[in-house]
Amino acid sequence: MKKIINAPDQIVEEMLSGIVRSYPKIVTRVEDTRVVARVKSSEQVGLVSGGGSGHEPAHAGFVGDGMLHAAVLGDVFTSPTPDQVLEGIKAANANQGVLLIVKNYTGDILNFDMAKELAEMDDIEVETVVVDDDIAVENSTYTAGKRGVAGTVLVHKILGAASRAKRSLQELKTLGEEVVAQTKTIGIALEAATVPEVGHKGFELAEDEIEYGVGIHGEPGYRKEKIKPSKELAEELVTKLLEAYEETPKEIALLVNGMGGTPLMEQFVFMNDVLDLCATHAIHVRFTKVGNLMTSIEMQGLSLTMLDVTTHPEWVDALEEQVTTIAW
Amino acid sequence: MKKIINAPDQIVEEMLSGIVRSYPKIVTRVEDTRVVARVKSSEQVGLVSGGGSGHEPAHAGFVGDGMLHAAVLGDVFTSPTPDQVLEGIKAANANQGVLLIVKNYTGDILNFDMAKELAEMDDIEVETVVVDDDIAVENSTYTAGKRGVAGTVLVHKILGAASRAKRSLQELKTLGEEVVAQTKTIGIALEAATVPEVGHKGFELAEDEIEYGVGIHGEPGYRKEKIKPSKELAEELVTKLLEAYEETPKEIALLVNGMGGTPLMEQFVFMNDVLDLCATHAIHVRFTKVGNLMTSIEMQGLSLTMLDVTTHPEWVDALEEQVTTIAW
Repeated sequence: MKKIINAPDQIVEEMLSGIVRSYPKIVTRVEDTRVVARVKSSEQVGLVSGGGSGHEPAHAGFVGDGMLHAAVLGDVFTSPTPDQVLEGIKAANANQGVLLIVKNYTGDILNFDMAKELAEMDDIEVETVVVDDDIAVENSTYTAGKRGVAGTVLVHKILGAASRAKRSLQELKTLGEEVVAQTKTIGIALEAATVPEVGHKGFELAEDEIEYGVGIHGEPGYRKEKIKPSKELAEELVTKLLEAYEETPKEIALLVNGMGGTPLMEQFVFMNDVLDLCATHAIHVRFTKVGNLMTSIEMQGLSLTMLDVTTHPEWVDALEEQVTTIAW
Repeated sequence: MKKIINAPDQIVEEMLSGIVRSYPKIVTRVEDTRVVARVKSSEQVGLVSGGGSGHEPAHAGFVGDGMLHAAVLGDVFTSPTPDQVLEGIKAANANQGVLLIVKNYTGDILNFDMAKELAEMDDIEVETVVVDDDIAVENSTYTAGKRGVAGTVLVHKILGAASRAKRSLQELKTLGEEVVAQTKTIGIALEAATVPEVGHKGFELAEDEIEYGVGIHGEPGYRKEKIKPSKELAEELVTKLLEAYEETPKEIALLVNGMGGTPLMEQFVFMNDVLDLCATHAIHVRFTKVGNLMTSIEMQGLSLTMLDVTTHPEWVDALEEQVTTIAW
């Protein structure tokens, strides 16, 4: 294992320290916790997300004006504990209630739920939106039901705009669930990542082989085969995404998300092919974003997220709003 | 070679298309050229940069209000031709003159110079700032003198602010040269990148080996040895950078730049160590940025850039100004 680290069990601590020291005008650490919070608070419903580390810039990179109020960092690929999530809730609380945005993994669901109960004992009103945008497989390692992956970032962005617009906790919960229902993601992997505490790659692929449907923790997908040209990969992913909607969306937002080790060059080539396919299907692409937003350490691969905005043009406005974060 | 592409000789064309189609509100392509230009023009000195592709998001990702006016894309790791640079100059020209920001590689210097001459025949006033921030080696593959690497992005940012503030062409050239003189960079590589047209890795490192001083095209550095903890890597790079200044800077800006395949997790761990060392040396860090800004396709590694701002607090303001680009 060749990584720029000091010791595997110190990575999250040192990374967190590096994040808040690098961007002190945007984020701060809640002392003695694994919570990254906004520097400036305001009278809004607090948005808290988080999960295992290893998905950087998610989630700390999306804390700031117009997006999250706090992110809670677990160990690498491990849910944060309930007491840490509780600290995140307290940091985000401005007496307007707090909404938890949780990716659908068994550990996260359990721990965020427990933190919700603890916060309610402290008289903080808390609601939860569960993101399960990955359409690749129905159940998987760590998950009952579909996994939460890169589409989570679009949920952060749209809810962040709504929170800034002073919408209520119940309105935000409803909005979040509406957005999640229209958000679908599917990914491919070319090379696995190495979890530092494990020390070897999470799975093996042959020199010319890729895997469709791999999750952001290297969970198995649905097929391995020889790599194909980008156009054909795009065709497979776009087709699968469109099949996941009851009817073909007329207007969409698109996110091509790099998994950490795949260069932007390939991400843009792929997006170009996706846009060609959307044109073929007469789908109007209203918003596009390309980059490493929800990674899997240094995994090579990418995911494609589609959000149906046909009946919600205001979601496009929300996606386009300026924010002050490290990484949006 | 496992890459998400269609054909090696189509990558730049398709990537460029992907970039402008993904961000049509920020950038546009000058028709039938390899030039990415701002959507909105204004009465400013035009800033043009560019070079070989493979360094994404540089340089097209830094086109937009407050930074570059146009970026010219060559083939992968290959200088753009003079006629393409000329198109970039024309796109950036708003009758206030055009400044070329060129990384110090023999091909780039030649071709940007030739384009300057062609533009002057068209009565466009053109000046050049050459960036040679890499202190690792004095001469290298492709270069006479020091190489231009990640520090170039800081030059873009500070000159972008000055152009927006309506400074003159001569003032910008002088400013650019002052910034370059205070900008020092050094990098390390853990794994080489594969140039698509070549099909195999540009150099080889053993499983536990890294190379100090590697350039952004995989040019040789100054030493190979076993990987060390991040703290020790930081110590080596910080020491070399400080030695490159006549006296230890009192106040600096810092950029940790990922080479494409190294996750943010490691970049933040490393920055944390760098900040510790700066504290030890009683150096005040006024500005910090971490991320993949000037990559070498999917090379694993990073570089550290230091900019002495001791006598120029206004450079910090320039670095902090909001801009509208894809990737700053």
